[in-house]
Amino acid sequence: MKVAIDAMGGDFGPRIVVEGAIKASREYKLEVILVGVEDLIKKEFKSINHSNAKITIVNAPEAIGMGEGLLSFRRKKRSSIRVGAQLVKEGEAEAFVSTGNTAAVVYISKQILGALKGVEKPALSLLVPTRNNLTLLIDVGANVNCRPSHLEQFAVMGHIFMESILGRKNPRIGLMSIGEEESKGNELTKETYDRLRASSLNFVGNVEGKDIYSGKADVIVSDGFTGNVALKVSEGVIETIFYMARTEIMKNFFAKIGFFLMKRNLKKIYKKIDYTEYGGAQLLGINGVCIVGHGCSNPIAVKNAVGLARDFVTSKVQEKIQKEIGKLSHNFSKVKG
Amino acid sequence: MKVAIDAMGGDFGPRIVVEGAIKASREYKLEVILVGVEDLIKKEFKSINHSNAKITIVNAPEAIGMGEGLLSFRRKKRSSIRVGAQLVKEGEAEAFVSTGNTAAVVYISKQILGALKGVEKPALSLLVPTRNNLTLLIDVGANVNCRPSHLEQFAVMGHIFMESILGRKNPRIGLMSIGEEESKGNELTKETYDRLRASSLNFVGNVEGKDIYSGKADVIVSDGFTGNVALKVSEGVIETIFYMARTEIMKNFFAKIGFFLMKRNLKKIYKKIDYTEYGGAQLLGINGVCIVGHGCSNPIAVKNAVGLARDFVTSKVQEKIQKEIGKLSHNFSKVKG
Repeated sequence: MKVAIDAMGGDFGPRIVVEGAIKASREYKLEVILVGVEDLIKKEFKSINHSNAKITIVNAPEAIGMGEGLLSFRRKKRSSIRVGAQLVKEGEAEAFVSTGNTAAVVYISKQILGALKGVEKPALSLLVPTRNNLTLLIDVGANVNCRPSHLEQFAVMGHIFMESILGRKNPRIGLMSIGEEESKGNELTKETYDRLRASSLNFVGNVEGKDIYSGKADVIVSDGFTGNVALKVSEGVIETIFYMARTEIMKNFFAKIGFFLMKRNLKKIYKKIDYTEYGGAQLLGINGVCIVGHGCSNPIAVKNAVGLARDFVTSKVQEKIQKEIGKLSHNFSKVKG
Repeated sequence: MKVAIDAMGGDFGPRIVVEGAIKASREYKLEVILVGVEDLIKKEFKSINHSNAKITIVNAPEAIGMGEGLLSFRRKKRSSIRVGAQLVKEGEAEAFVSTGNTAAVVYISKQILGALKGVEKPALSLLVPTRNNLTLLIDVGANVNCRPSHLEQFAVMGHIFMESILGRKNPRIGLMSIGEEESKGNELTKETYDRLRASSLNFVGNVEGKDIYSGKADVIVSDGFTGNVALKVSEGVIETIFYMARTEIMKNFFAKIGFFLMKRNLKKIYKKIDYTEYGGAQLLGINGVCIVGHGCSNPIAVKNAVGLARDFVTSKVQEKIQKEIGKLSHNFSKVKG
């Protein structure tokens, strides 16, 4: 298997990605294609022990920075993200992994690879930590204006991901809304509710914002606007609590000692609740495997993202999505008709 | 001044409300009308020292529980919420305060009092704690399907609230979206962005979910669906972090001692970040003052809610809203035309 990886992605330059790629190639016994500025990659590659790793380099002279927007995505015709996606398109690689600008990866991959047949809108999904497990939130920002049929497809794709990749049997599908009762929600969620209830999915009804972290559902379906706000709110609350903790603690001598004694445990909690620790997002419904790792990834996280890409390929997630999407629309039109 | 208060609201029966009403009457030198099951109120009232408090009772034999829905709101013609709102309608009270079922208060008040002239959709606003101050989030659930003109009006109402009640001069208005750039957002936020930029408000552009707690804006405008999800996500994250902290800490001896030493400080943080501590939500744009205190209010919180109602009346918030709403629509049509 060959996995292409964006060597220019991430906040810290190619070093971390190169290290992660070497680890991945060794552990998963696959070939990794590093895509990016050739000279920079070669320089890093030489300085790291790469015995037993199968690595090739494909030159892509441009990089898209984390802060760049639509204009750069379009203009930079030889960006590492564009070249990486093209490798998948042309069959040179079976999957593409980037820890770069998420919006760029979503935009360019959709443009180059297109959607799977029958998929109306590819969606970005993310695993978030709950009290005891992981929940998949879909969509977290790829589609800001959604119709009920889109959300229905997100549910199917989330179902397949959780079953195929995480081995969760008959995953519980929840619909993000503002109350558990069927009558609660906006126009979008109310119609989606009916569709999901009519489907063969294990639909557990509406869930509320607080349920993202309670583990009440294995998959939480949402339009990309709400999903993105929900994620960012979490980020803000977590940062604020830890900021307040530091400020509050420094005011009091005993609290300082207490903090010192608890420091390791508090760090553990931070790591546990911080969704950025969970190796990134998946672009589901695209005609090619595409994993978006988080920008502040370390080499292990990069390696894990490659592992996830491999799992996508071996579990035939794409084929399953295409098959199930076809079935579902058929079922729903039968119910409606 | 006379303020009507729903004695049946709250999770703990009339006692807390009665205590809060007595405190409020004394402190603010106003008359409080307790609305609810007369016998129950009288029983509580007799057992509490009420010297120097001016309290009257208006009987309302029905109560709407926290878990009840639309059917009860409509059916219970003599509920304390309905009778309380009617007192405002008939001029018997200048404001109505309830710590009961928020959805019931919103529904019934809108039905009985109606919207202020020119206000398309009354909205529910809530003060949330930021790192150093308070930010007003509007709407947090009264309107799940919104148009740009609604959000524009929410901004005006939020502006007036923050200026008149919190004394914040020229409050910064932010629009809840999924990126700071003007181009980020959904159809609703993009058009709202243009409207707010064209207005005379101190519009600071898009804010993200994480900015609710950063204090980047004094008012954050959002449709009620997104606003409600955002709030509930916060609740969930806060609960989960403290749950994880307890679990994590109990695993380790030193952490236990540390926790013991920090306990008071951690409680302080919890109180600081927990928005339920901040005395409830305001129904803005309704033709009558209506404050929704939080269900788990203590007597002090009930008293504060009455104080807030008094501030609404004396600052003439309603008159200001009506005046400014009129002006704004005029300005925007000029810009557009």
